[in-house]
Amino acid sequence: MTTSAKTAFPGDRELVLTRLIDAPRDKLFRAWTEPKLIKQWFAPLPWTISAVELDLRPGGSSLFVMRDPDGNEFPNPGIYLEVVKNERLVFTDAFTRAWEPSEKPFMTAIVTFEDEGGKTRYTARARHWTVADREAHEKMGFHEGWGQCADQLAALVAKL
Amino acid sequence: MTTSAKTAFPGDRELVLTRLIDAPRDKLFRAWTEPKLIKQWFAPLPWTISAVELDLRPGGSSLFVMRDPDGNEFPNPGIYLEVVKNERLVFTDAFTRAWEPSEKPFMTAIVTFEDEGGKTRYTARARHWTVADREAHEKMGFHEGWGQCADQLAALVAKL
Repeated sequence: MTTSAKTAFPGDRELVLTRLIDAPRDKLFRAWTEPKLIKQWFAPLPWTISAVELDLRPGGSSLFVMRDPDGNEFPNPGIYLEVVKNERLVFTDAFTRAWEPSEKPFMTAIVTFEDEGGKTRYTARARHWTVADREAHEKMGFHEGWGQCADQLAALVAKL
Repeated sequence: MTTSAKTAFPGDRELVLTRLIDAPRDKLFRAWTEPKLIKQWFAPLPWTISAVELDLRPGGSSLFVMRDPDGNEFPNPGIYLEVVKNERLVFTDAFTRAWEPSEKPFMTAIVTFEDEGGKTRYTARARHWTVADREAHEKMGFHEGWGQCADQLAALVAKL
């Protein structure tokens, strides 16, 4: 984990999910960065991912289109702020592309992969600009949704 | 100028100042990135800059402390999103450091330096998350303040 991930950030604006996953860091990083793998775990079933477009570099765009069971699609455009292979990804919806402020900056996600006893400590942090947004994100089901996705991720990397 | 600076961004969320300055790009870039030079032009007199701390890299922190004629100080913390020597600087107050969302994302500044007929086309864009913030920034005196600073900048680089 880098220094910036360890700094104290106000807990009332942050949500954190962490798991110890029995797979090496590079497989988790692949599952987070290869579109055909992302589609297999990144939405909590029965939601699915109908499209993924990634430009993996600081300032590069990311687009995840989520589809609900009725077929309604929800695009999530954003950009990467930091990309460190097999270690760390940071992305945000505060910009729709470099450097165009979005209409509503909601969160910045920091995902880290660390060696821990032969497995990988997987941590996903969602940091918000306001306490209200953190609360809304929690009520939207952050822990359940990201938790279910983490289960799907662990099942996927076990097969890679 | 890179593609991203040329894209159409909604004019009601953007403020732009541009000048043709009779100096090469590298001197303008130095004036924007060397603390002892920044202090000589970056605040519209009689305001001054009392402190500057820069970590010139994507994700690096920037701090400009402005001082009014009565000695009151106004720190402006932010981070760099993009640093391209002699060409381009992008910074924002949406993060206080990498990657900690600030309490109020107000603007992202894009500063570009381009060759034009033996001089340099200097352009500073301020992009906002809301129309209200763009309007507030304009009423705070964006054009007068940045304009006066551009005059101070041009006078400084003429002596470098």
